[in-house]
Amino acid sequence: MTRQQLVALIRGMGSYLCVGLDSDRTKIPAHLLSHKDPVFEFNKQIIDATKDHCVAYKINTAFYEADGVKGWETMEKTVNYIPSTHFKIADAKRGDIGNTSSQYARAFFETLAFDAVTVAPYMGEDSVRPFLEYKDKWTILLGLTSNSGARDFELQEAGDGLLYEQVLMKASVWGSPDNLMYVIGATQAEAFRNVRRLTPDHFYLVPGVGAQGGSLEDISKQAMNGDVGLLVNASRAVIYASAGEDFAQAAGKAAAEYHQEMGRYL
Amino acid sequence: MTRQQLVALIRGMGSYLCVGLDSDRTKIPAHLLSHKDPVFEFNKQIIDATKDHCVAYKINTAFYEADGVKGWETMEKTVNYIPSTHFKIADAKRGDIGNTSSQYARAFFETLAFDAVTVAPYMGEDSVRPFLEYKDKWTILLGLTSNSGARDFELQEAGDGLLYEQVLMKASVWGSPDNLMYVIGATQAEAFRNVRRLTPDHFYLVPGVGAQGGSLEDISKQAMNGDVGLLVNASRAVIYASAGEDFAQAAGKAAAEYHQEMGRYL
Repeated sequence: MTRQQLVALIRGMGSYLCVGLDSDRTKIPAHLLSHKDPVFEFNKQIIDATKDHCVAYKINTAFYEADGVKGWETMEKTVNYIPSTHFKIADAKRGDIGNTSSQYARAFFETLAFDAVTVAPYMGEDSVRPFLEYKDKWTILLGLTSNSGARDFELQEAGDGLLYEQVLMKASVWGSPDNLMYVIGATQAEAFRNVRRLTPDHFYLVPGVGAQGGSLEDISKQAMNGDVGLLVNASRAVIYASAGEDFAQAAGKAAAEYHQEMGRYL
Repeated sequence: MTRQQLVALIRGMGSYLCVGLDSDRTKIPAHLLSHKDPVFEFNKQIIDATKDHCVAYKINTAFYEADGVKGWETMEKTVNYIPSTHFKIADAKRGDIGNTSSQYARAFFETLAFDAVTVAPYMGEDSVRPFLEYKDKWTILLGLTSNSGARDFELQEAGDGLLYEQVLMKASVWGSPDNLMYVIGATQAEAFRNVRRLTPDHFYLVPGVGAQGGSLEDISKQAMNGDVGLLVNASRAVIYASAGEDFAQAAGKAAAEYHQEMGRYL
């Protein structure tokens, strides 16, 4: 998906919501467990109930890999089930030496039909570049994450600024706002103005709204740019809105509320 | 596997060689392609030919994920085929917020029977800790890697030293030399003395010998400690020693040469 297509999708729907499919077999409603692939059944119903309110889905690969081969089957079926209109993110946090990163890029961009993959920056340019080589695919590099561990390295002094600022500045040269986004956590609201100053044109994937406590209003007001420039992810707050048989309806309602609130900021 | 068992394994065999199964369907000998699972057949023959010369196998998850569900099947079969005497490493470079890292730990330590997994440090303590909670399992944290991109962040000034030094120092408190190792690239030979000074008791997983150009002699002389403290990995130099029907024999010979050389340094 090109940037132009992504922006048109967001403008057309009036939403920049990404629904995170962190689907955990031990947390899905009990009545689904009789299905042959309970997690896929859960995802299907969540997608059906939320697709009119979100522009993107983010599959957290960890939750699928925890079930091994079966989990990868569920992931493959899920990514194929997401409507072709929607932006599909593999939240995989991969990154390795060049010839290995090329294999990860092949896994998520060719073998699986994702539009984007999240990548860790620690190993530097040659670990990121293989992902950037794919036309109309996106690399979403970790910038400033939403967890407490962000203080350990990301927010430490490095060179002329903080480490995450170095990551934003250096990586901006490796890719362009047309194929590179950054993960910027919603719990870091005070940092958003600074992040936007450093990277005015890039899209951000923003996790941490909802269960992790970030405010959608703060982020939207501080970080939106002329092309919106935001994909705000909600996982647990949407997919686990209810633990009962009405889980899909409740997820749809939660997604609709984000949709409505986003409409006010657009 | 405990540290005591690992050290006994190394001393008993007189080898600290790890064979890296970066097995790529497009690079394995053509005569294997008629097998139902050519990569597994390749790995099986490589393991049979090298197991008397190495103490560990390292499965590079990227090369398996590139084939999707089938690749994960091959990975599962391969890890189950490795003799129980040997140390089994998932070279996966994972790391995410705590509840997600817990799922990755489950994937590699429970669903798959690995002894160790490589982890990226960028997201800090809570992204690493779930891996450290498993008894007799190992976390191998990226310290200083063997690729050119190490210069982008790892070797940049951060706090009182370089970023990778901060990673070594901080993480040493999260785990102990009994459950935490570091990846230190062999192409960084001049840094090994410094690394050993900072972390005298830890084991290092050392990639980059062979195809990437690092010297086994330099590393062994500079970085060995009283418990050996090294697992030196060779991937392409062993598994692709020959592209013909004699590939396994050639791999065995290459591994035997490392074994013999290591015997001189022990």
